Amino acid sequence: MEGFNIDYIEIIGLTAAVLTTTAFLPQVYQTWKTKDVSALSLPMLLIFFIGILFWLVYGILQKSLSMIFANSITILSSFLLVYFKIKYSKRS
Amino acid sequence: MEGFNIDYIEIIGLTAAVLTTTAFLPQVYQTWKTKDVSALSLPMLLIFFIGILFWLVYGILQKSLSMIFANSITILSSFLLVYFKIKYSKRS
Repeated sequence: MEGFNIDYIEIIGLTAAVLTTTAFLPQVYQTWKTKDVSALSLPMLLIFFIGILFWLVYGILQKSLSMIFANSITILSSFLLVYFKIKYSKRS
Repeated sequence: MEGFNIDYIEIIGLTAAVLTTTAFLPQVYQTWKTKDVSALSLPMLLIFFIGILFWLVYGILQKSLSMIFANSITILSSFLLVYFKIKYSKRS
């Protein structure tokens, strides 16, 4: 991709990206499947979501393909957790 | 710090670092306090731990203060979760 350098450093970063985003997905799946959001704290989810937003901006400014890739996926995952928390909390 | 650039990009990164590491700590505290590790999956914790290790190496190679700071703390947190999972799983 133009402007992006895929060297050995970026391969380490992309490995990191795949591992940490993969580790996060089962939580999203489990929450969606069980609708059990009792163990999730809304303030913590919001802090995490805003944190990931900052990481994404940081990655874009640093032109880091790994960080843009990882944080684009994780921001979606964490948005879904916030959404599930609000949606399923109302029921109980 | 020598070799590190603290500019506005790094301030965004450090903000991200504080937010995401902060959001992670209550999980560690809760697990330590309740000793309830049933919701934690060992393979996922290990994948996450190895992922963070890769992020730390990536941050060092990129000379990113924010990533070194964030991932040094998160690698400790995730190591503790792996440790708790192994330690408290044996009891039940």
